[in-house]
Amino acid sequence: MMRDVAIIGAAAAPVQKRAPSIRELALRASVDALADARLEHVDAIVVGSMASGEFTGQHHLGPLVADQLHLTPVPALRVEAACASGSAAFHVAHVAIASGMYDSALVTGVERMSGVSTAVASRILAGAADYEYEVEQGASFVGLNAMVMRRYLSDFDVGHDQLIQFAVNAHRNALTSPHALLKASVTVDEAMSSRVVADPVRLYDCSPICDGAASIVLAADEVAQDYDEAVWVRGAGLATDTMSFHDRSDLLTLDASRIAAERALEQAQMAVDDVDVYEIHDAFTVMTPLILESLGLYPKGEGWRAASDGEIALDGRVPISTFGGLKARGHPVGATGMYQLVEATHQLRGEAGSNQVPAAHTALVQNMGGTGSTIAIHILEATR
Amino acid sequence: MMRDVAIIGAAAAPVQKRAPSIRELALRASVDALADARLEHVDAIVVGSMASGEFTGQHHLGPLVADQLHLTPVPALRVEAACASGSAAFHVAHVAIASGMYDSALVTGVERMSGVSTAVASRILAGAADYEYEVEQGASFVGLNAMVMRRYLSDFDVGHDQLIQFAVNAHRNALTSPHALLKASVTVDEAMSSRVVADPVRLYDCSPICDGAASIVLAADEVAQDYDEAVWVRGAGLATDTMSFHDRSDLLTLDASRIAAERALEQAQMAVDDVDVYEIHDAFTVMTPLILESLGLYPKGEGWRAASDGEIALDGRVPISTFGGLKARGHPVGATGMYQLVEATHQLRGEAGSNQVPAAHTALVQNMGGTGSTIAIHILEATR
Repeated sequence: MMRDVAIIGAAAAPVQKRAPSIRELALRASVDALADARLEHVDAIVVGSMASGEFTGQHHLGPLVADQLHLTPVPALRVEAACASGSAAFHVAHVAIASGMYDSALVTGVERMSGVSTAVASRILAGAADYEYEVEQGASFVGLNAMVMRRYLSDFDVGHDQLIQFAVNAHRNALTSPHALLKASVTVDEAMSSRVVADPVRLYDCSPICDGAASIVLAADEVAQDYDEAVWVRGAGLATDTMSFHDRSDLLTLDASRIAAERALEQAQMAVDDVDVYEIHDAFTVMTPLILESLGLYPKGEGWRAASDGEIALDGRVPISTFGGLKARGHPVGATGMYQLVEATHQLRGEAGSNQVPAAHTALVQNMGGTGSTIAIHILEATR
Repeated sequence: MMRDVAIIGAAAAPVQKRAPSIRELALRASVDALADARLEHVDAIVVGSMASGEFTGQHHLGPLVADQLHLTPVPALRVEAACASGSAAFHVAHVAIASGMYDSALVTGVERMSGVSTAVASRILAGAADYEYEVEQGASFVGLNAMVMRRYLSDFDVGHDQLIQFAVNAHRNALTSPHALLKASVTVDEAMSSRVVADPVRLYDCSPICDGAASIVLAADEVAQDYDEAVWVRGAGLATDTMSFHDRSDLLTLDASRIAAERALEQAQMAVDDVDVYEIHDAFTVMTPLILESLGLYPKGEGWRAASDGEIALDGRVPISTFGGLKARGHPVGATGMYQLVEATHQLRGEAGSNQVPAAHTALVQNMGGTGSTIAIHILEATR
């Protein structure tokens, strides 16, 4: 019943330490994606953003983007799922086109986090976790991830210096990424001697606060079949888990990620090993092995081996963070899912330059909100 | 290609001056709607809220509601379109079911505004307008509406005492509304002598800041056909306009409302006069005539006659605000669209008690974000 849907345009604005305005950020990525799709109009606009109201004062980003593009009265709205807002917005647009309601849509993920102090940003971001049962009790978002990391290091036969190799890989890929924020290579020793943020999480275990926007134009098969470089959405899975850690049976199992992946892969009629590129939500180094395990790529407690065995390199079995990941491309929270989808699109079009994964034909994009309370997974496939 | 979709459950929590918690508000309406639908599970959850992060600290309402209902890993996300967030969330769920992606969904609109001072609430609400070009320049949301009202009173042959009759009508209907906040009748003289908020807007021209939640269960035709009281979604129109007043050709024309209504009515294959009940976004008294004019129910500049001619009464030609409207039921911003849809559902089921519009078979629900920058319109029809 649902129609096939494809990506026919994609663009990512350079991630910045401080962009002048959320509207200009969103406009730049949106205009570039429309140009990439060779379209001047779309049937709908969906914006993904976590907390534009708190970060910038500006709610109501749907009509803001429509207005900036001079596309009113086009239908437009915003979708929020904390740090998974970008992928959730993509999901809403995908379903709306598949339904036949719209033939094309622009999806823009945007966040401008630099307008508030780091302390205020930390308080805003904590709202992705359970505010009453975790945040009000003193938990910060980094603190929650520190608990997970401590438990991972304690339960499994792995050292911090092995986890930090995920950061080293991300920084290596960011060096040649056209839109990454942190273009500086780092060694394990340098990363391990960075300052402690929330023990055992060190600075190089964390993704940075920053500003960014990334956009995609989606279209129904009737439109997309005219595009040789179209990238098809073959599977979509959205799943939730409890807001609080204390309600989960196991701190080290991302149930929603496993379930969302199963749904998306089943739709795509693929096995996880069939995928050529994996863009995953590496917001903290410990999340990477947990995600790789949740996808079924490694047994529980062994995801960390992906880094030390070299499998995550661009020419490895499980290439991840191919443009720097959240760690080094940057993590403008509500925009991140859209950066991941744009990066996967570049890979599947063979346009990733120095960051190209050889013969990439399929990609899995995994985006997380909160401490795994929302997971959105998409499976993409190249036309060629 | 799209499937028919119907409302099979609906519930509205009493609008309150101060609710203890956003999660309890959302849970109450959600549980009641699921019970009304005689369902224990749905395929997806969509939450509508304008600014839960700023009002309560809690973002990420999708998994919060899923978690509270013990329905994880159900897919869940939040939709925002300022004061049209409720209807926009309903739209996303409607399209997702029509597409075949999901067979049922819970939609919950919720806002808890009472946790901040009125001054802070005023600043948050202003984020529905253009933050950089209007709010930063000193405009408040009430101030923007005062400009519109001054212009309406100046351009057309109408007095303030005639506009305020819309408030009198809303208060009259709220007296017997089971979930309205302001259950007190008011006379024209009393309303006209209330204090000035932003000249010429007086207190009784404004809807109140408050807390509330309303929920609906939507289902595909295969499921809904077993429900005698199902209310069908016959048309949906979402449209945008510029964020700033200075970019519009006319301060007194709601273009997006006209366009959204045309789309929704065309889908429903109906004329606007065919509708039996109109729930419209009466956030300020002056908005009511503008909306009635945008829908084509009155010529430009004559919408105010609806009140003085008595046509808006429950047994009139254009019954509006049948449970008190935004003015007297209350306007918990991101929940309002869902209150309107729940109220229309009660009307079409013939369950509106003392507030029943005689022989109501079809309803038009109009919900506005910002100063008309987002308009969502839905056409509903009873089964019987």
